[in-house]
Amino acid sequence: MRVKHKKWAVPLMEAHPEMMTMDPASFKGRWQERFAKPQPLQVEVGMGKGQFIIGMAKAHPEINFIGLEIESTVAAIALKNALPEQLPNLTLVRGDGAGLDTYFEDGSIDRLYLNFSDPWPKTRHEKRRLTYKTFLANYQQVVKPGGGLEFKTDNQGLFEYSLTSLNNFGMIFDGVWLNLHESPENEGNVETEYEQRFASLGQPIYKLKAHFPVN
Amino acid sequence: MRVKHKKWAVPLMEAHPEMMTMDPASFKGRWQERFAKPQPLQVEVGMGKGQFIIGMAKAHPEINFIGLEIESTVAAIALKNALPEQLPNLTLVRGDGAGLDTYFEDGSIDRLYLNFSDPWPKTRHEKRRLTYKTFLANYQQVVKPGGGLEFKTDNQGLFEYSLTSLNNFGMIFDGVWLNLHESPENEGNVETEYEQRFASLGQPIYKLKAHFPVN
Repeated sequence: MRVKHKKWAVPLMEAHPEMMTMDPASFKGRWQERFAKPQPLQVEVGMGKGQFIIGMAKAHPEINFIGLEIESTVAAIALKNALPEQLPNLTLVRGDGAGLDTYFEDGSIDRLYLNFSDPWPKTRHEKRRLTYKTFLANYQQVVKPGGGLEFKTDNQGLFEYSLTSLNNFGMIFDGVWLNLHESPENEGNVETEYEQRFASLGQPIYKLKAHFPVN
Repeated sequence: MRVKHKKWAVPLMEAHPEMMTMDPASFKGRWQERFAKPQPLQVEVGMGKGQFIIGMAKAHPEINFIGLEIESTVAAIALKNALPEQLPNLTLVRGDGAGLDTYFEDGSIDRLYLNFSDPWPKTRHEKRRLTYKTFLANYQQVVKPGGGLEFKTDNQGLFEYSLTSLNNFGMIFDGVWLNLHESPENEGNVETEYEQRFASLGQPIYKLKAHFPVN
């Protein structure tokens, strides 16, 4: 997600180290200290303005959540949205999805969420897609054995690509939905900002749930 | 495909043993004798009235094709459609997709086609779907190592199911298309009767191409 740069973004994040870190590598191995109590850990890569991860943290107090966002202004907007909620099971990170293995210890995450990632439609940009094999290898490293990910998008090309990419990587599908909002899987679905907008235009939302094999 | 039973169906098939067999097990190990010359072999499971397999045989004279259909009247209609074409690389079978291993030797088929199979939407009928794991095991046995299948449907539920089923079976995806007729993959696509009808109603056609792993 790209937005116009805001001057207040970095100062706001610096003023709230209790909820936001811009140096996630420094918390490697001790993320659970950032929450009220140690609980299963789920991470969203690319949280945008935070609607999904905040909604998940509210709906699932028994899970600890981390929202990751690479763009400073976007991460700061998520922080603004999260602060009034005072959720003991949510913490935010300004950081790069490609750096997960430098932020998290091996096998420390229960589940990853990828929501409405940039489709990078040109073939020469394939390596930037969050479901490209180098990203998947990174996810596999930080996710627990048997752990997995949930992926939502409205982009047909990215979804077609991701089905093949995850399959070719050896991931095991738990379920595929070609019209999430019309399916039973929609019960308990927490929507992102994008998802609300796209779904209201009548476009189908695709979802894939998959896990890594236990070796 | 279900149609009204026609009295002429079985007599017509019996009158054309050169193009149609109702005893496919008797040709196990010698299918290539049914064609003008030995060539790579591709089989459609559930050919319906034969438009696809006849079109493929015309478009690819370098490949031998077998069309399989379980319903006698439907198979006889396919025969009626095939006879005037006098194709040296096509032969038809009235037989059951579940019996492939009794009709074909292990590793004797290069590629299978499943087109617009019955979706069997009820969970208790899952075992009847042509992409259920027992069918896949049967296909794996008769297909060459590294060989695979192409699957087309307009049924969203069956496609969602099949993506998961083929993935869970360990098949490797070569490509997924969520709107075949609007994609580059549509070049050279031979349509079935159903496909023509559904696509003309504006419904998307789904396609999955996958192969079995080489052990």
